[in-house]
Amino acid sequence: MANLPSDVLALGTRRNVMREIFEYGKLLAQKVGAENVFDYSLGNPSVAPPASVNQTIRDVLDGAEGDSIHAYTSAQGDLPNRELLSASLNRRFGENSTADDLYFTMGAAAALTCCFHALTCPGDEYVIPAPYFTEYQVFIAGAGGKVVESKPDPKTFQPDLVSFEAAFSPQTKGVVINSPNNPSGVVYSKETLAQLTDIMRQKAAEYGHPIYLISDEPYREIVFDGFSVPWLPAFYDNTLVCYSYSKSLSLPGERIGYVFVSPKMEDNRLIYAAVCGAGRKLGYVNAPALFQRVAALCDGQTADIAVYQENRNLLYSSLTQMGFTCVEPGGTFYLLIKSMEADSVAFCERAREFCLLLAPADSFSCPGYARIAFCVPTERIRASLPAFQKLADSYQS
Amino acid sequence: MANLPSDVLALGTRRNVMREIFEYGKLLAQKVGAENVFDYSLGNPSVAPPASVNQTIRDVLDGAEGDSIHAYTSAQGDLPNRELLSASLNRRFGENSTADDLYFTMGAAAALTCCFHALTCPGDEYVIPAPYFTEYQVFIAGAGGKVVESKPDPKTFQPDLVSFEAAFSPQTKGVVINSPNNPSGVVYSKETLAQLTDIMRQKAAEYGHPIYLISDEPYREIVFDGFSVPWLPAFYDNTLVCYSYSKSLSLPGERIGYVFVSPKMEDNRLIYAAVCGAGRKLGYVNAPALFQRVAALCDGQTADIAVYQENRNLLYSSLTQMGFTCVEPGGTFYLLIKSMEADSVAFCERAREFCLLLAPADSFSCPGYARIAFCVPTERIRASLPAFQKLADSYQS
Repeated sequence: MANLPSDVLALGTRRNVMREIFEYGKLLAQKVGAENVFDYSLGNPSVAPPASVNQTIRDVLDGAEGDSIHAYTSAQGDLPNRELLSASLNRRFGENSTADDLYFTMGAAAALTCCFHALTCPGDEYVIPAPYFTEYQVFIAGAGGKVVESKPDPKTFQPDLVSFEAAFSPQTKGVVINSPNNPSGVVYSKETLAQLTDIMRQKAAEYGHPIYLISDEPYREIVFDGFSVPWLPAFYDNTLVCYSYSKSLSLPGERIGYVFVSPKMEDNRLIYAAVCGAGRKLGYVNAPALFQRVAALCDGQTADIAVYQENRNLLYSSLTQMGFTCVEPGGTFYLLIKSMEADSVAFCERAREFCLLLAPADSFSCPGYARIAFCVPTERIRASLPAFQKLADSYQS
Repeated sequence: MANLPSDVLALGTRRNVMREIFEYGKLLAQKVGAENVFDYSLGNPSVAPPASVNQTIRDVLDGAEGDSIHAYTSAQGDLPNRELLSASLNRRFGENSTADDLYFTMGAAAALTCCFHALTCPGDEYVIPAPYFTEYQVFIAGAGGKVVESKPDPKTFQPDLVSFEAAFSPQTKGVVINSPNNPSGVVYSKETLAQLTDIMRQKAAEYGHPIYLISDEPYREIVFDGFSVPWLPAFYDNTLVCYSYSKSLSLPGERIGYVFVSPKMEDNRLIYAAVCGAGRKLGYVNAPALFQRVAALCDGQTADIAVYQENRNLLYSSLTQMGFTCVEPGGTFYLLIKSMEADSVAFCERAREFCLLLAPADSFSCPGYARIAFCVPTERIRASLPAFQKLADSYQS
């Protein structure tokens, strides 16, 4: 009998809630017809990549480097790609970076694992405001660290700063934030970020060691009218930005993103070297070469995110009219609705009776809520509104 | 001051011997002219990918799935891609696999880290016949395991089976082999593999637990007339094949490969789940989507490897005529030559005086030898022969 490490075995066999709902939806579609199933379970971008993506691929293949584009790049990413990206960040965010502050990765998940493996010593803790993407727990545990959650504030889904401050200890190595946020869709405000980073500075001074801000930003560009996403390194020197092009360019399968190690970070060169060393340890030789070039050339562009805004408008106004409680999302393609009974799993099961597939937010450390991933065609949202109405009505009787 | 894990910091800052030689070569080229520098340091494929690679990319982009190709795939790889690949392996190797025995990865490095993290419990050891690619040490240490080397047999560079058998202990979790071999270019014979796997079976029976064979096969298709690469799962049931398209299709920058978990393996479903769980833990969401499709459609094809055979013929016959000692490579684009003095680092330094850049094989656990990576244009090899002659002559005087 094989003696295997229990953590990876659990990860490989444990049922994934979102995936399970998705599979259930496929079965349901066979029974009642796909047109009658409203699947809001997965955060898979529904809009096509901008035309520039496939055009850039064709241009690169047709150009002088058509064959050599597939060669190894340096581990941190091809220098010309990092130079392009650095210039783009400097232009867009008033940053003062060089190519050597950037490390191309295979998407945000790889960016996060590289950061956690770069920073984590035994016993280290990371404070994370709920709600949050719970795969962070997998990555942090894999690096030997521990997650300490702070409580959600369901009135706004901005971090509850009292609970946040209480979550710190001398073992705190870093803080992970994700804004625009999965699963709430909320964009953390400048005021929130100013207070949050003030607390971090105080705690770092109190404990006498740095506390790192790891900012997971795959939704940075998916932000709606009237909202803006502050550039974190402007608020806090010891910031590592983990970025992915998965959502902004609708390229989640290609696994391309980066770590940005703020040039203002204490021991910037050491931290950058540790990130590179972590990538080497984990078997990330270099981020995919062709998509490094595509990302560098298309940085700052987006797929047609107007669709997400239209979806948000329709869904938020309709749901609140029906009596659902939710906080208006400022970005992403998610929103949380309050469960109409205490048990959000039971709430989501009742929603299934109306062919609405929602994800209980328990797995985002936000029990009592359900996540709606509205990255679907707008006509599907329109078609689903009667089902939401029936769901609401079922709690009136 | 940052408190960082020492292993990743060392990995991120430690000088890489091969990379250092490469950088030295660039400086030397400025002094004496690039045409006078013969850089044999890096294993970067020198021939272009087969035309089918870029054509397949264009076809996919122009086809019905042009936009949807960039979407998330399932974690183990898109099912149609795994079905294509499984059929190809069944056809080419008389295998009896299904799509569910295959897990697409980001090249062989990721395949190896996923296997090591899937299998390794604290205290586990892996036996590896020298010479070998020493990055295995990084991956195994990263998973919490330990490497136990067996000695090289410099007469043939087949594994020294006496030393191999002596390397086993009750802590042995697996064996890692790499044939065709980096750095020797040697292809392990059927006889070697039959004996080697017999030893593994005996030891597994003696210890009462499975011993896994991890076969790292990025050079499987780069094999010369008169040699063949046996299919390892036919020799040993508990085999995991780690494959990369980096060398066969000249795509090292794109990071695409796979783990094949033999369907005959004991607890096959459990091991496969652990590999998937390890990929999740390490942040490998899915292997790059577009290149999954390219690899599945081009499996079994190769870049123009005739060039490597021509290089091997020219280099091997010339060097042996000059009095160098080397074992004829049956594949890859590497060969080892015996150092003409005890210290192979000093030997490589003397070679530099003749503008020959060779890598001391000390870093492949094979001191006393130097590696020549002959993935360079054939005319460069021809041009370098007088320099090799001068190097040989310098040891006669």
